[in-house]
Amino acid sequence: MRVTTIHAPGDVRLEDRPQPRVQAPTDAVVRVVASCICGSDLWSYRGENEITPGTPIGHEIVGVVEEVGPEVRDFRAGDFVIAPFCHCDNSCPVCRKGMQAACQNLGFTVGGQGEYALVNQADGSLVKTSETPDAAQVPALLALSDVMATGWHAAVSARVEPGASVVVVGDGAVGLCGVLAAARLGAERIIAMSRHEPRQAVARTFGATDIVVERGKEGAQAVLELTDGIGADAVLECVGTNESMRTALRAARPGATVGFVGVPHGVELPVNAMFGRNVGVAGGMAPVRKYLPDLLDRTLAGDLDPSPVFDLVLPLDEVAEGYRAMDERRAIKVLLQP
Amino acid sequence: MRVTTIHAPGDVRLEDRPQPRVQAPTDAVVRVVASCICGSDLWSYRGENEITPGTPIGHEIVGVVEEVGPEVRDFRAGDFVIAPFCHCDNSCPVCRKGMQAACQNLGFTVGGQGEYALVNQADGSLVKTSETPDAAQVPALLALSDVMATGWHAAVSARVEPGASVVVVGDGAVGLCGVLAAARLGAERIIAMSRHEPRQAVARTFGATDIVVERGKEGAQAVLELTDGIGADAVLECVGTNESMRTALRAARPGATVGFVGVPHGVELPVNAMFGRNVGVAGGMAPVRKYLPDLLDRTLAGDLDPSPVFDLVLPLDEVAEGYRAMDERRAIKVLLQP
Repeated sequence: MRVTTIHAPGDVRLEDRPQPRVQAPTDAVVRVVASCICGSDLWSYRGENEITPGTPIGHEIVGVVEEVGPEVRDFRAGDFVIAPFCHCDNSCPVCRKGMQAACQNLGFTVGGQGEYALVNQADGSLVKTSETPDAAQVPALLALSDVMATGWHAAVSARVEPGASVVVVGDGAVGLCGVLAAARLGAERIIAMSRHEPRQAVARTFGATDIVVERGKEGAQAVLELTDGIGADAVLECVGTNESMRTALRAARPGATVGFVGVPHGVELPVNAMFGRNVGVAGGMAPVRKYLPDLLDRTLAGDLDPSPVFDLVLPLDEVAEGYRAMDERRAIKVLLQP
Repeated sequence: MRVTTIHAPGDVRLEDRPQPRVQAPTDAVVRVVASCICGSDLWSYRGENEITPGTPIGHEIVGVVEEVGPEVRDFRAGDFVIAPFCHCDNSCPVCRKGMQAACQNLGFTVGGQGEYALVNQADGSLVKTSETPDAAQVPALLALSDVMATGWHAAVSARVEPGASVVVVGDGAVGLCGVLAAARLGAERIIAMSRHEPRQAVARTFGATDIVVERGKEGAQAVLELTDGIGADAVLECVGTNESMRTALRAARPGATVGFVGVPHGVELPVNAMFGRNVGVAGGMAPVRKYLPDLLDRTLAGDLDPSPVFDLVLPLDEVAEGYRAMDERRAIKVLLQP
């Protein structure tokens, strides 16, 4: 089968590899209907994460079950499924606490930018639709496998409540989904920090009430002016750099929480300043499976549509162009069709 | 009047100073009925905070209003009051969000280990009892001015919920009050980390179900064994050192929050480990005034009695011995009677 691999910074290739097969009795193999490129894939593409040359890449997929292991009870060939990027048994003590991203049997989708992918713990991980969705529904459903659930996790971690003022730092697809999550969780004022017009437009579509184009201290100052001089009730940090975290902490009012979902790269938390202002931080990898049933219901009911984050659709053959487009910020998020 | 001053590490004195007078129209002067020594006073006493020689010290008091400024409406001479260690107007935008510890008109009790103390923003800060309490009630009420409210803030910041498993790191008076707070907030299992028998006994009185005597990694391991192998739902960090914070983070289950109220001294937060396990931190100086009405109701109703943290009562004249007793851990917390 064809699958995207990464060999070095800037060097992704579509290669032929053996099709994955069920290994453990709880596995499933999914034929990929759509996948996409994640902001976190760019860390490797840009050389900021270490690369083992030839590693298959991609972790966001929807598709059709091709084959299941003998212990898989709830799925069978032909089911249309959304596969969380992190797999879980959804039954261990950690999953029962609602933190499926730290499941005691954690697994990950690998090589999702390809034709087939292996999902561990299929019964715990996968969620299926009652019927095969229309092609038009696929992008929104695909977003639930990671980016929308991650934006949701940022908002939940930041304790967004009805009526809250919210700041979202980061205008990538996760940040935009954070805007959408904050809106659905009842935030009254949603301030998106973005200097890119196409992204500002998506943010407004998703519910942003204000756009702040300044960054750093100036950005935080602009937030203060919009929030009674004190900062926002909740802040979503959706980048992962030290600068973005500092901006997020500065934009938070005393007593607020910064929900962070950008994998930290060089972040140092200023604990004494946090203590002095009673600003907390919470977050991490999203427990996608926890949120997925609710997000799926909302999506099928027409209450949630994250699909506008996909502003470029390419055939899998053109995956290298997809990476370039995202790296150069010509595209917010690229959907790939095998 | 007599007031305690600190001149150098290990050098506290009772000196004569002018009695404080109303300066701003919103001030009140309180005649101190009882005060006490705080764990945070020991940072200075031990030379870990900078000292301006001769600085009056002490910030926890209950007493009787002696004099009020012309704009004070809710209090008058003769009222018995509890004075939060941090003063607030209780009406600014930050206070209205419930974070009175960052009031835009923040003030502090200074020289509370003395005969009289000035309270800024009297109407916003003070809470009075409907009648003058019995002498037997004074210790519990005194604890509400800081230590009990701070333990409560640790538990609230850590998001203690009914049925939760809770770990408390630190067996000083704040940690013990954290145990009591967790119990009143409905925690089911409360694990106190303590190797001092008298403190273990108070912890059990306050509701601790388990005692862990190990520290550091061994302590965290002991917690794991008590919590289904995954760690506690909520952790209260009531010390403020890097070692205690590491222990707290290790003892937290994935998805938990560490509520921290020990002023950080040399703490470095391991952000990538926190992200990897979805463990958050929240806390800071306690917004005492926010909790005070509820804590007072509970205390007067007999539902909350933090007074066992005071295991040594001394006349103000013997304040130097009080500091020695706390420094040498001969006393948990010393109550001073002017």
